[in-house]
Amino acid sequence: MGLQPMLSAHGLKGRVTLEFQVPVNEERIEQDIQTIATFTETPGNGASRPTFSKSWRAARDYIVKELESAGCKWKVDACGNLHARPNAIAWDSSTWVSGSHIDSVPNGGNFDGVVGCVAPLEVFRAAKEDQKVVPLELITWAEEEGTTFSLGMLGSRAWTGSLSRDQLASLRNAQGQNYLDAGAQHGVVPDKIGVDKIKPTSIIGLIEVHVEQGPGLWNDKKPAGIVNAIAGRRQYSCVITGVANHAGSTSMRDRRDALAGMSEILLEFEKLAEHLGHRTVITIGQLFPKPNAINVINGEVTFTVDFRTPVTEVLPAGDKGIHKIVEDVCAHRHLIYALDVTESLPAIEMDARVCNRLAKAADKIGLKQIPQTISGALHDAAILAPLVPTAMLFVPSRDGISHNSDEFSRIEDIAAATEILAEAVRDRRIE
Amino acid sequence: MGLQPMLSAHGLKGRVTLEFQVPVNEERIEQDIQTIATFTETPGNGASRPTFSKSWRAARDYIVKELESAGCKWKVDACGNLHARPNAIAWDSSTWVSGSHIDSVPNGGNFDGVVGCVAPLEVFRAAKEDQKVVPLELITWAEEEGTTFSLGMLGSRAWTGSLSRDQLASLRNAQGQNYLDAGAQHGVVPDKIGVDKIKPTSIIGLIEVHVEQGPGLWNDKKPAGIVNAIAGRRQYSCVITGVANHAGSTSMRDRRDALAGMSEILLEFEKLAEHLGHRTVITIGQLFPKPNAINVINGEVTFTVDFRTPVTEVLPAGDKGIHKIVEDVCAHRHLIYALDVTESLPAIEMDARVCNRLAKAADKIGLKQIPQTISGALHDAAILAPLVPTAMLFVPSRDGISHNSDEFSRIEDIAAATEILAEAVRDRRIE
Repeated sequence: MGLQPMLSAHGLKGRVTLEFQVPVNEERIEQDIQTIATFTETPGNGASRPTFSKSWRAARDYIVKELESAGCKWKVDACGNLHARPNAIAWDSSTWVSGSHIDSVPNGGNFDGVVGCVAPLEVFRAAKEDQKVVPLELITWAEEEGTTFSLGMLGSRAWTGSLSRDQLASLRNAQGQNYLDAGAQHGVVPDKIGVDKIKPTSIIGLIEVHVEQGPGLWNDKKPAGIVNAIAGRRQYSCVITGVANHAGSTSMRDRRDALAGMSEILLEFEKLAEHLGHRTVITIGQLFPKPNAINVINGEVTFTVDFRTPVTEVLPAGDKGIHKIVEDVCAHRHLIYALDVTESLPAIEMDARVCNRLAKAADKIGLKQIPQTISGALHDAAILAPLVPTAMLFVPSRDGISHNSDEFSRIEDIAAATEILAEAVRDRRIE
Repeated sequence: MGLQPMLSAHGLKGRVTLEFQVPVNEERIEQDIQTIATFTETPGNGASRPTFSKSWRAARDYIVKELESAGCKWKVDACGNLHARPNAIAWDSSTWVSGSHIDSVPNGGNFDGVVGCVAPLEVFRAAKEDQKVVPLELITWAEEEGTTFSLGMLGSRAWTGSLSRDQLASLRNAQGQNYLDAGAQHGVVPDKIGVDKIKPTSIIGLIEVHVEQGPGLWNDKKPAGIVNAIAGRRQYSCVITGVANHAGSTSMRDRRDALAGMSEILLEFEKLAEHLGHRTVITIGQLFPKPNAINVINGEVTFTVDFRTPVTEVLPAGDKGIHKIVEDVCAHRHLIYALDVTESLPAIEMDARVCNRLAKAADKIGLKQIPQTISGALHDAAILAPLVPTAMLFVPSRDGISHNSDEFSRIEDIAAATEILAEAVRDRRIE
C-alpha cells in the first residue's frame, strides 16, 4: 500500500494543520499497519493471527513498544486484554476507552481490528507531540473474531463478566489448548477472572474505531460513518427433505427437489429483507446438498440462515417471516423441513450522546455531515454497550471487502477517524 | 418382498393361463430377484455389485446355471458380455435380443438391470415347459451403470465398436485395475476386442425390459409402458463468481451473492423445462459454494446442469434457453459466469415397428392400451438403437425411487412385462 496524497476525494486538504491542534501523522499510522501486517502465519497470503499465537504476540509487543514511546503505562488484565493510559492518568480515574483487536480470521485483511488499535495509539502519540494529556485508555481485546477458540469477543465477554473461568476452560484452539492454558504466558490469570473486571463507573464512554466491512461508505464517497446501532442476529439451521431421484427419469411435476426448495426460500428471503427494511439482511451462507451428484435430484439440503437487523422490534417479525416462507415453500413443493434457531442476540442501540459527540468532533475538524450508519457485524463494542455509553466510528472499506486479503482502507480515512476520535476524547465531557 | 396376489389393481386375474400359452411363473421370477439380491458387497444396505467383482460374478454364475437348466447354451464375448440362446438355435441364425445388466450403483436397488435379465431368462424357462423354442438371445451387458469404471454402458459400447481396446485400457476401477485386466478372469479377451462384435443383420430386434426409475407408470396405475424414445442429454459445468463478503455488514442491494444467482437460475430452469414440454427435464444436481460459511455471502458457486429431452429438435432450443437464463440472471445480479457443455448426446427414437409389436403383444395377453412413454435415463438399448430395431418395455417403479435400496417393483408387473416379451419374440416377424 502506498501513502495516499492529502488531496483526497473528500477535499480534506490542509484540514489536519488548519482545524486541529493535535498533529495526527498519517505516516506513523501507515507504518503501524504495515508493520502489524508482517506479523502473520501466512506471509503473502493475508493476515493470519490467531489469539495467543507468536504472530499475535509480536503485534501486541509492537503496540506496547509504541505505547511506551508515547508516554503510556500499560497492563494486561486477567482475561488477556491489553490496557494502556498516559503515565499522568491514574488507573482508577475515569477516562474514555477506545480499542479493538489484533487477532484475525485465517487469511484475513490488514485493517480489520488493527485500525481500531492504531487510532487511539496515534492519539497518544499526537497528544504527546502537542504536549497534551488525553483522558483515554486504549484496550486491545483478546480474541474478537471467534476463529481461534470457536467463540467471538472472548476478551470483552470475560472482562465484562459474561464468560466464567469454567467456560473459558472449555474453549480450545486448533492445538487443543484451552483459553486459560494458551493465554497463561500472555497475561491470563485464571484465578483472577471474574475479579479483575470492568468498573463501568470509571469509563466515560467507549468509542471503537473499525473498518466498515461493507461497501456503504466507500460507494457513497464518505470519509467516515457514525454507528448508531449494532444489528441483532438470529441464526438458524434448516434441513429440507425431499426425494433423491434420477435426474433423467423423474418428470418436473413428480420431483420433490430439496435444492429447488432451498433456492425458492433464498429468493423469498431476499424479498422479506427488503420488506422488513431498516437495512435488514438475510443470508443463506452454508449448505450441504445430498447426494450432490450431477444426475441425481437432491433429496436433502441442510443449510444455515443468518438474519440481522439493527431494530430489535424487527427481529420477531423477521423470525415469523422466515418460518412462514420455509413452511409455505415446503408445503407447495411437498417437502419436509426442520428449522431450528441456533443463536439469538438482540439489536443494540449506541449511546446518542456519544454519537452526537462524534458528530460534533467531525464537524469541528471540518468533516461536515458524517453519515450515521449501522453495524451489521458484531464487535467488542456490542459487549460493552449495555454497561457503558458506547458508539463506533466506521472507516470506509474499499468495495466493502473484508475477511479477505484484498481488504483495504485509505490511510487518509483512517487518519480522519483518528482525528475525530482525538477531538471526541479531548476532555471528560460526554455532551 | 412377498408374493403378490394375482388379483391386482390392473385386473390381471386369470390372464396368464387364459390368454397365453407359455406359463410365465411369478415364483421363479421372485426367486431370481431375491437370489441375485443376496449377491452384494453391502448386505442389508442395498445392492452393491461393481462389474467384475465377486458378487457380480456370483450373480452371472447364477444366471448361467438357470440358463443351462432352461436348455440354453451360453458364451461370453471378448468385451465381457454374456450371451445365451436355446440349444436348438445356432449362434449365426437371426434372433430377437433381450437383456440388461447385473452391475449396480453403490447401495442401489434389487430391480435396476436385474429385471431385464430375469425376464428373457424366464421366457426360456417358460418356453421349455411349453415345449417351444423361441428365437431369442439373452445378453447380460457388462458395466452399464458407469460407477465401476467411470463410464456407463461399457459392455454395449465395446461390443458395438464405439470403444476401442485402448480406451478400455485407460478406464480403471477403485482398485486401480483397468477394464481389460479386471475382466480377464471373467471372459474379456483384449486381442479380440473390435473383432468379436455385433453383427446387426443377425438381430431381428432388441427389446430391453427395465424398471422405469420414475413414478409415471406407478402413479398412473399402469402395469407397463412402451418406451418410444430415449432422451437426449446435454450436461454443463457452470461457475458463477460474485463477491464473498460479510453477511452482517453487506446490505442486500450491495451484494453480489453467487448462491442467490444460482438459486434464481434453478427456478428459471424449472420454468424453461415446462415451457419446452415433451417431458423435458433440467436439473442442478451438484454444487460447490465458496466459502460455504454461515456468516459469509458466497462469492462463488460451481454447479452442474443436466438437461434431457426425448425430442432432438428441443435440444438446441433448450441449450439456447439455458445460456440466456444464466446470462440474464448474472447480468442483473452483477455476477460473472463461465458455462461449458461437458456432454452432448442426441435423443434416440425407438423403432416404431418394435413398439407396435410390443403394443400388439400386450393387447393379445389382455393388457389393453399400454401407454407409450419415454426414457429419461440412458440404457444399453440407446447404444444398440442406431444399429438394430430397438424398443424398451418399462416396469413401474414404486414412487419412482431408484438408485436406492428402497427401489421396488411388483413381481406381478415384472411377470406381465415378461409375458409381453415372450409374446413379442414368439416368432421372427417384426411386424
